[in-house]
Amino acid sequence: MTQAQAMPDPQPIWQIMTGFQQSAAFKTAIELELFTKIGEGNKTVADIAKACGAAEKGIRVLADVFTVHGFLTKADENYSLSDMSAAFLDKNSRTYLGSAVEFIMSDGQKRGYEDLTNAVRSGGSQIQGEASMDPDSPMWVTFAKAMMPMMFPAAMGIAGNLGFEKDQKLKVLDIAAGHGIFGIMVAQAYPNAEIHAVDWANVLTVATENANRMGVGDRHHLIPGSAFDVEFGEDYDVVLVTNFLHHFDAETCAKFMSKVYAALKPGGKAITLEFIPNDDRVSPPGEALFALVMLAATPGGDAYTFNELKKMCEDAGFSSNVHVPMPPMPQHLVISTKEG
Amino acid sequence: MTQAQAMPDPQPIWQIMTGFQQSAAFKTAIELELFTKIGEGNKTVADIAKACGAAEKGIRVLADVFTVHGFLTKADENYSLSDMSAAFLDKNSRTYLGSAVEFIMSDGQKRGYEDLTNAVRSGGSQIQGEASMDPDSPMWVTFAKAMMPMMFPAAMGIAGNLGFEKDQKLKVLDIAAGHGIFGIMVAQAYPNAEIHAVDWANVLTVATENANRMGVGDRHHLIPGSAFDVEFGEDYDVVLVTNFLHHFDAETCAKFMSKVYAALKPGGKAITLEFIPNDDRVSPPGEALFALVMLAATPGGDAYTFNELKKMCEDAGFSSNVHVPMPPMPQHLVISTKEG
Repeated sequence: MTQAQAMPDPQPIWQIMTGFQQSAAFKTAIELELFTKIGEGNKTVADIAKACGAAEKGIRVLADVFTVHGFLTKADENYSLSDMSAAFLDKNSRTYLGSAVEFIMSDGQKRGYEDLTNAVRSGGSQIQGEASMDPDSPMWVTFAKAMMPMMFPAAMGIAGNLGFEKDQKLKVLDIAAGHGIFGIMVAQAYPNAEIHAVDWANVLTVATENANRMGVGDRHHLIPGSAFDVEFGEDYDVVLVTNFLHHFDAETCAKFMSKVYAALKPGGKAITLEFIPNDDRVSPPGEALFALVMLAATPGGDAYTFNELKKMCEDAGFSSNVHVPMPPMPQHLVISTKEG
Repeated sequence: MTQAQAMPDPQPIWQIMTGFQQSAAFKTAIELELFTKIGEGNKTVADIAKACGAAEKGIRVLADVFTVHGFLTKADENYSLSDMSAAFLDKNSRTYLGSAVEFIMSDGQKRGYEDLTNAVRSGGSQIQGEASMDPDSPMWVTFAKAMMPMMFPAAMGIAGNLGFEKDQKLKVLDIAAGHGIFGIMVAQAYPNAEIHAVDWANVLTVATENANRMGVGDRHHLIPGSAFDVEFGEDYDVVLVTNFLHHFDAETCAKFMSKVYAALKPGGKAITLEFIPNDDRVSPPGEALFALVMLAATPGGDAYTFNELKKMCEDAGFSSNVHVPMPPMPQHLVISTKEG
């Protein structure tokens, strides 16, 4: 064994190879409401299994897996939620995030990873049909519904970084609004803001529902269609470009930002929300790994560095571009101002 | 942002959900020989892409992903292998383990995780056809070829723990031999050992190839068929029960160990190789998580604790059962002796 013990530890190889097994276990735990049922007071395998409608053997294995991962604790054969699971994985929590698996681990998203070798060979996803860029793709309705809770902190960050007077009248364009939460939280923070949300018509139904539910429906207006094709109108104080640019190549992004520039009034601000890695492209981890997501999902998208985003914005006419990280979130802001 | 910052960090949720993305990236890196080509001296994106026959954009993203994971280092846009990658992921290394993805991430193995919710509901895999238990399943030929390198350390551990005199004449039964490496390394350590390997006929062709290549072909004999059905013969000094019991329920295991007991001569040893978690079933991590693998792959298998294995062996007649962990490996031995 001397020889084997002198070797590096191959554990990381085993861990990365079996990561898909842990992802599947997480999806199953969400589907069976494992965390929710434990949060409701079921502690033993027998009680949890009954509450989840599952076999005791299956629940024992699943609960042990999440104890290993620190999502649960186990003492005297009783399972409890960790603080993190209680906050984010119990459906009774207002900050429940579990719905994200419905998008992140949807068949549509997983397809890109089944074909990843081909994407690396070609430099971008080769998947056709119902892909990220197709109008009326049901993927974006799923996205809008499943991912909204995960976007709350970033939406709070945007509303908190706009820098206008609270009672100012604001005309806000929300590009590729999806669930609408970015515009909605601006509307909540600025009572005189009017939001104009652009997205495909089927997706905007989700945004409208959310705007009504969150009490800003009367200030939430719709511009259905592709963000590349529709007329935005003009004289906007704010244009929100959230989780959008990463789907496209740099040239397309720069051209698109020209359209944004044209829609702003002098002194207006484009707020870009992006996963922005450092120039080394390998830090911070969450930001850097997002490049893989775009390689798997899009023909030409990427996780752009701030310098790359700045170049796009400068090419579009913005002379002032400020990078605003929002740790611990992997999503950062770029605030680009149209000179007055 | 005060409210958001007071919350627990949801990063572990993102990490477990996106684990399947990293697994896919690993499979792609192995398929394109990313680590091998870097090991051969290709350092820049352009050179690596050319050597791998892939696009520069794709290789940049892939190499950055593995830099984030610590499998590569990156300095001045030049990538290098970590010690671990050089040892285990470069095909030119004698300890290359990358082939394991061909089994661990095969379609046959992944199917169980696609159906995991159903398995938890039912208490075991509901997958039919070409599953772990089917004779002539090509899965086990893939297993034999892909997983042999990963089993070298455990095989060395077995040969080193038998405790016989080196020149002793040994009659060894190698149950579900697969690649044959467990019996083969006993044959290498004990020049007067004769190995009798049991497995399905299609799988044994792999074991025979390996025995010939490793110089013990003249002492490597075949008993083709199911380990449950074939006649083992008798008067064995050693029976190797490696990575076998975890596929079956406890009752089946105990019954099978009775057959092993009957095949041994007095003083003979059954050597069981298993992922053996502690009684708490949630430590150590590698051992504990193996229960998930069996839930996804088998109707009744499990990662058994030492006390459970001891009970099976005692029920089969073995009065002496010794637990031999082999850290840092997740696989342990149980050495069961038939009283003389």
